[in-house]
Amino acid sequence: MSIEDRLKAIGLEIPRGVSAAADYVPATLHNGTLYVSGQIPRVGTEVKYVGRVGVDCTLADAKAAAQICAARILGVARDFLGSLDRVQRVLELTVYVNADASFTEPSAVADAASDVMVKAFLQAGTHARSAVCVAQLPKGAMVEVSAILAV
Amino acid sequence: MSIEDRLKAIGLEIPRGVSAAADYVPATLHNGTLYVSGQIPRVGTEVKYVGRVGVDCTLADAKAAAQICAARILGVARDFLGSLDRVQRVLELTVYVNADASFTEPSAVADAASDVMVKAFLQAGTHARSAVCVAQLPKGAMVEVSAILAV
Amino acid sequence: MSIEDRLKAIGLEIPRGVSAAADYVPATLHNGTLYVSGQIPRVGTEVKYVGRVGVDCTLADAKAAAQICAARILGVARDFLGSLDRVQRVLELTVYVNADASFTEPSAVADAASDVMVKAFLQAGTHARSAVCVAQLPKGAMVEVSAILAV
Repeated sequence: MSIEDRLKAIGLEIPRGVSAAADYVPATLHNGTLYVSGQIPRVGTEVKYVGRVGVDCTLADAKAAAQICAARILGVARDFLGSLDRVQRVLELTVYVNADASFTEPSAVADAASDVMVKAFLQAGTHARSAVCVAQLPKGAMVEVSAILAV
Repeated sequence: MSIEDRLKAIGLEIPRGVSAAADYVPATLHNGTLYVSGQIPRVGTEVKYVGRVGVDCTLADAKAAAQICAARILGVARDFLGSLDRVQRVLELTVYVNADASFTEPSAVADAASDVMVKAFLQAGTHARSAVCVAQLPKGAMVEVSAILAV
Repeated sequence: MSIEDRLKAIGLEIPRGVSAAADYVPATLHNGTLYVSGQIPRVGTEVKYVGRVGVDCTLADAKAAAQICAARILGVARDFLGSLDRVQRVLELTVYVNADASFTEPSAVADAASDVMVKAFLQAGTHARSAVCVAQLPKGAMVEVSAILAV
């Protein structure tokens, strides 16, 4: 099964043409290390999941949002590298969850992003990770995920 | 035009002697990757921009603060490397904005830091980026920006 | 004095068998760079320091929590590398403090983590650093610290 087939099997499509506005870019590469910009749960031009966990959305919403962020990271990597087969290892994910202090499970949200990486790359998809709740995110997004990949 | 001349043309001076307190240092280098400590908008010893966006300061204030943070990153890199000409690429910026949940444009703040990098290094100044709002920052600073550079 | 002896002299023991749940791992290595997952102040299975600085705990509590996070980073590195003698340099710490907007000294909390690194590795323990206050952390932890090490 190809990486994309494994993701399709869980109902997840890797987006094409993920871009970045302004003076930043979706990814940079140096010495075999790919830095991927923080991704929010956009589908096309729309931010599909907006809101703060513990205030106006649920853990389930945030997990769905995190999954889209992860798929976008894969989209960026595929566009940059030509093929996801060039990814040797997911080195690190940083998961920012838009939440107030009542929500103490950013790890559970992050698990949804982590699962996508392992589904895509199997053992090479396991990674170091940080998960935190922040005060707000771009466009009110529910989750933002950045990544460092070995290629 | 030199890097410093391009920044002077937009009214921005790269500070000298940016230091770090305690047991941390302004930057570390490994395998051609320079890690620069999170910079707050200090001018000399004073934190020039203090406050929370959406509470007691504006987007314009935060953008000015972000510009100073970016200039300080360049100051650290120049002090560490001897010359900014040794910077091959800005790999990643992480932009933390001191804001409450009413402010959903940390990206607009981050753009001001990103612009400095592109002004300084042109195409090599484009970078991967994350921008988030946090609950508070050192000394009440409005913005903190850290960077990873290729040298 | 060995690294562990220097830490014992300040009453700090490096934990064994620090693990990560789910699909992420305690650390990943690429090109001599070790990425260590964000650590919270667990002792065994218990999160020893829970709470928000400025709300229901003090700076002293948070410093003690940060010290445990740092010890856990060392524990992860030792387990991964076989010996802490393989660490060449601490490249970067990112310190997330669980706090509300009334607390403007995340740097003081981070100092406690930084001190552990310098105590362990002396000059090689100095590092680039970012310190921010966030809205909440996994399990309500007071502090989370992630690290990048050169090996």
